[in-house]
Amino acid sequence: MGYNLLKGKRGIIFGALDENSIAWKTAQSVHDEGGTFVLTNAPIAMRMGQIDELAKKTGSQIIPADATSVEDLDNLIAKSVEILGGKIDFVLHSIGMSVNVRKGRAYTDENYDFTAKGWDVSALSFHKVLQSLYKADAMNEWGSVVALTYMAAQRTFPDYNDMADNKAYLESIARSFGYFFGKEKKVRVNTISQSPTATTAGQGVKGFDGFISYAEKMSPLGNATAQDCADYTVTLFSDLTRKVTMQNLFHDGGFSNTGVSQEVIEKF
Amino acid sequence: MGYNLLKGKRGIIFGALDENSIAWKTAQSVHDEGGTFVLTNAPIAMRMGQIDELAKKTGSQIIPADATSVEDLDNLIAKSVEILGGKIDFVLHSIGMSVNVRKGRAYTDENYDFTAKGWDVSALSFHKVLQSLYKADAMNEWGSVVALTYMAAQRTFPDYNDMADNKAYLESIARSFGYFFGKEKKVRVNTISQSPTATTAGQGVKGFDGFISYAEKMSPLGNATAQDCADYTVTLFSDLTRKVTMQNLFHDGGFSNTGVSQEVIEKF
Amino acid sequence: MGYNLLKGKRGIIFGALDENSIAWKTAQSVHDEGGTFVLTNAPIAMRMGQIDELAKKTGSQIIPADATSVEDLDNLIAKSVEILGGKIDFVLHSIGMSVNVRKGRAYTDENYDFTAKGWDVSALSFHKVLQSLYKADAMNEWGSVVALTYMAAQRTFPDYNDMADNKAYLESIARSFGYFFGKEKKVRVNTISQSPTATTAGQGVKGFDGFISYAEKMSPLGNATAQDCADYTVTLFSDLTRKVTMQNLFHDGGFSNTGVSQEVIEKF
Amino acid sequence: MGYNLLKGKRGIIFGALDENSIAWKTAQSVHDEGGTFVLTNAPIAMRMGQIDELAKKTGSQIIPADATSVEDLDNLIAKSVEILGGKIDFVLHSIGMSVNVRKGRAYTDENYDFTAKGWDVSALSFHKVLQSLYKADAMNEWGSVVALTYMAAQRTFPDYNDMADNKAYLESIARSFGYFFGKEKKVRVNTISQSPTATTAGQGVKGFDGFISYAEKMSPLGNATAQDCADYTVTLFSDLTRKVTMQNLFHDGGFSNTGVSQEVIEKF
Repeated sequence: MGYNLLKGKRGIIFGALDENSIAWKTAQSVHDEGGTFVLTNAPIAMRMGQIDELAKKTGSQIIPADATSVEDLDNLIAKSVEILGGKIDFVLHSIGMSVNVRKGRAYTDENYDFTAKGWDVSALSFHKVLQSLYKADAMNEWGSVVALTYMAAQRTFPDYNDMADNKAYLESIARSFGYFFGKEKKVRVNTISQSPTATTAGQGVKGFDGFISYAEKMSPLGNATAQDCADYTVTLFSDLTRKVTMQNLFHDGGFSNTGVSQEVIEKF
Repeated sequence: MGYNLLKGKRGIIFGALDENSIAWKTAQSVHDEGGTFVLTNAPIAMRMGQIDELAKKTGSQIIPADATSVEDLDNLIAKSVEILGGKIDFVLHSIGMSVNVRKGRAYTDENYDFTAKGWDVSALSFHKVLQSLYKADAMNEWGSVVALTYMAAQRTFPDYNDMADNKAYLESIARSFGYFFGKEKKVRVNTISQSPTATTAGQGVKGFDGFISYAEKMSPLGNATAQDCADYTVTLFSDLTRKVTMQNLFHDGGFSNTGVSQEVIEKF
Repeated sequence: MGYNLLKGKRGIIFGALDENSIAWKTAQSVHDEGGTFVLTNAPIAMRMGQIDELAKKTGSQIIPADATSVEDLDNLIAKSVEILGGKIDFVLHSIGMSVNVRKGRAYTDENYDFTAKGWDVSALSFHKVLQSLYKADAMNEWGSVVALTYMAAQRTFPDYNDMADNKAYLESIARSFGYFFGKEKKVRVNTISQSPTATTAGQGVKGFDGFISYAEKMSPLGNATAQDCADYTVTLFSDLTRKVTMQNLFHDGGFSNTGVSQEVIEKF
Repeated sequence: MGYNLLKGKRGIIFGALDENSIAWKTAQSVHDEGGTFVLTNAPIAMRMGQIDELAKKTGSQIIPADATSVEDLDNLIAKSVEILGGKIDFVLHSIGMSVNVRKGRAYTDENYDFTAKGWDVSALSFHKVLQSLYKADAMNEWGSVVALTYMAAQRTFPDYNDMADNKAYLESIARSFGYFFGKEKKVRVNTISQSPTATTAGQGVKGFDGFISYAEKMSPLGNATAQDCADYTVTLFSDLTRKVTMQNLFHDGGFSNTGVSQEVIEKF
């Protein structure tokens, strides 16, 4: 079980809620590959989830942190280095939430307090994580940071709402911070643009089932699952991808470069 | 002087500060092409600038508006429709400011209150403008909205700081809102990704002169000037580009698709 | 009728077959804008088309040329300069044909002689046109060359076959030659990536009607028509777009940046 | 040594010339990861290279094949399946050559016979490899095909000449064939867009040393080496990247998303 790809590597994994989460699957795969890590999530998300079970299975400790709070992040990082016994090699950022979507506000009828809150949680939190890691000098050379994103950052999907703009901001952070983190500390920063995935979080989005089915038919290899994403993330945490940085990597069975598929066109 | 390309068209132009501004040049060119418009800027920017002179030259009225205030925008739009005698055909958004840059904070040392302020002014303001126009049903069919942006949204320029992320968000808004504005009201929304331009605002950025000189040498046709940008914007406001929407249009003498130029490589 | 945007400008228009052709519409629009030009097409295409009628309407001369023959192109350019009374300001390349498509060969069952022929006609011909213009020093400064292309160069459309690869090559020529033509002679070179268009040539492609209907539903502003494309091309030939070069410009009602539209997703 | 990532997998590696070749390094890394393979190269390249030594080290057989000859490719594939004892899991296409470059012809002075030859060798050969594999049904499900490319396909590098256009065509093949190979046989097809690499082949290009030094300074993590590329290719051949297809993956230390670096701008 596993190739020992991450043997001896230490990390922090944000965003494991329950067994459907990509972060949950990633934690398990990283564990199988020999990596050790701290699990973290927002205090409120942790009450809803089953993260204790994951911690037990993977021999991990949990440190709650609000990813919009620099203080929480600084504390998380300091404690993680202490618990894991050394600097960090990998970080997964899997955090996103739109208050406008939750409250049923259309993209053309945004409540800007909601927008600001969603931007802080979904996009700026990634900068805060990176900046806290950078300032604490907490990453090892050739460390790897990955954030999850979605293709709505490039093309409009009507129900994706302001998350599209948040993801565009997030992907830009990966490039901008990736430049400095690469230059100064040889750390790489990338985003994975994942197929729509039937996570517990995703289920809240209107028309999500129809959309998953559409994406499945548009993708020559079918949608990438949460487990597929965990596998791919492992390669990006490994030493085999050291010169990949500042990239947005589509992991979607070919959806992104398919103009239309035979199955879809046949409906017209 | 001019081709009458915008004869009978009405618009709103944000961001004319002084005669170096792209918005200033655009206002003059739009006037030459037969368009009428309202000029607007933040109250504080208006005190610093010479916008009265531009208003006089172009027979325009000025309505101060803070582009982060929905109330101000709603007022601006209602008054503009009244003053101009009908719905709006074109809008130029030329607004951007990073407090982190102004205060000399590095990208890896952001003050997040500054970041939020810059995001609101530079990026979210574009959504607010669009949403106010949309809700007021203030745009004519086949109207055209243009926002100015910069290639830092795609690639990192070390001194561009958090404006890169703001521009990425802005460009995403053009796609997201462009979808709905196109579908519902046949209005197009695009961004122009302009060469670095020696505006009064640009002069504040560290190392800007060196950068303009570098861009000049990298661009097969040289940098696009503010006047070039005004010309190009006129075409996007005209009826000749009705099916161009949700695009980010590079207007840069070829910089964006030049990997390296002969002059630059010769330095290595 | 017309804004005089191209007054005094001289050009060459390739590919007008009949009144459904984009090149035909472009010729008419250029004529309306005050431009003069030579029409050209392959001898065989001219027998099938009604180009004489277009020549009469626009006061143009016709010079047959096989766009894969450097000799024909050199002759065409020399004669055009002579007929028009000066160097060339604009060129439209609207040429494309896949023998594999015509002969019903699938993309996974290409006949490579067919592939080479289609590549020469559809892609390399653009380089030949540019090289002949360049060597003859036949373009005025700030001249503009436009070639038509399709988004299959970026994303796969199953029935588009080897034309996708040809268009990718064509778009690359626009960048590569655009660099040198810009640097040396201040000439710009761009491609327009146009909506699927119901031309006589397009009608040969399998499933084309279904595809046009799909694209219509995916495009917030609907498909761009041949006339829309002619209008847009006029702006790219004009002096208002002098710093746009080496670009691939999507002209498609927003299709390219729409992930999925409401109408399409509702079928799933 | 190695993680057993490719244990039990069988493949074909094109293009190993000498120990500086990316294909050579890849063969060694694949061997270290437990994969078995057939080595192939053009008969003429094999006379110049030291491929026998590589074959000995990795326990591989060599089958000469001209990658522009369908007959040679069909023979290569049939024999490889026989020798390796089963269908193919991975293929590396590392083939490229411009006669125009070799003969010192400028991009604006192409000899079109040279151009056609270079296109056939560098670009069309990839389609031929894929089509021969597809028709012979020689790939296992979830097999992986990788071709090497360069960023000149997106942006112009003056000395890269017609190889830019060839690489654009090659990358298009990866998308086009990737669609069908994914749909029909669950095989993935990708290209790696690699940093400029000091291979024996690369050394022929004019000004190559200066260019490598420039790219090094532009890339936050420095240029990716041939060994880095071999490592990355191994991940793409592995089972951990099954849903990545039809992508062009930049492997370049961040060059592709760096607008300018501090070191470069300081020269201006």
